[in-house]
Amino acid sequence: MEITHIEHIGIAVKSIDEHLPYYEDVLGLKCYNIETVEDQKVKTAFFKVGQTKIELLEPTDETSTVAKFIEKRGEGVHHIAYATNNVNEALAEAEAKGIKLIDKQGRPGAEGLTIGFLHPKWTGGVLTEFCEE
Amino acid sequence: MEITHIEHIGIAVKSIDEHLPYYEDVLGLKCYNIETVEDQKVKTAFFKVGQTKIELLEPTDETSTVAKFIEKRGEGVHHIAYATNNVNEALAEAEAKGIKLIDKQGRPGAEGLTIGFLHPKWTGGVLTEFCEE
Repeated sequence: MEITHIEHIGIAVKSIDEHLPYYEDVLGLKCYNIETVEDQKVKTAFFKVGQTKIELLEPTDETSTVAKFIEKRGEGVHHIAYATNNVNEALAEAEAKGIKLIDKQGRPGAEGLTIGFLHPKWTGGVLTEFCEE
Repeated sequence: MEITHIEHIGIAVKSIDEHLPYYEDVLGLKCYNIETVEDQKVKTAFFKVGQTKIELLEPTDETSTVAKFIEKRGEGVHHIAYATNNVNEALAEAEAKGIKLIDKQGRPGAEGLTIGFLHPKWTGGVLTEFCEE
C-alpha cells in the first residue's frame, strides 16, 4: 500500500462547542466544516493543520462508539487516519499480513471520503483508519 | 502563535521491536532514526508520513512518564506535537489564554527539537506539545 500522509487525527470530545475556543482561540486553527455522520452517530468539526486535519468527534447518541470510548477512556485521541490511494487494496493487504479488520470494505465517511478501520488490538492500541478521497 | 503542521504523533509502546513490523511491513513506513532521550527515559523510533512523523515511545525505566501512561491506559497515542516557529512564545500565549502548562519554557527533545508541553486537562484530554526546529 502507499500511504502519502496523515489525513486526519480523530479526537473524541463530549462537546464540540466546549472545545472550539481551545482550537480556534488558543491554537489559532479555523473550523471550516461541521458535519454529522448519521451512520457513526457523531457530529464532527474539522480544522486544517498543514496536510492534516484535526477532526473533533462528538457523540450524538449514547450508543455511539465514540460515546462508549469517552465513557471508558475519557476524552482524547480516538483514531489516526492515513491517506491511501486505494482503501480496499490497503485493507486487503493489511488483512493478508495478519491484521484484524473492523471494515472488510471501504464505506462512506465524513467529508466525502471512503474509509475503513483496522482493529486497535492489532495496531498497538491505536485505532487506525485508511481513507481515500 | 503560528502552527504550520503536525510535527509528530507520539505513540506509547511497551516494545519498539514488537511494533516495528506493523509500521514497516504493514503500513510500509521506514524507521529512519532510533534515539534514546535520557531526560524523558524513553527510547524513540521515527517514521515519516508526509509532513508528519510517527514517534514510537518505549519507556527505558519504570519511573518514565510513558511507563506510567501505559500502566494506566495501555499502549496507544500518547501526544500530538504541533510545529511552531517559536515554542517559548507559543507557550506564553497559551498560558495567557488560560491553558495550564507542563513546561513554562522550551527544553531539548528528540531529533534536536525544542519542545514544550501543555497540560492535557486543559486541552480536552490530549497531551499537546509545541515544537520548534
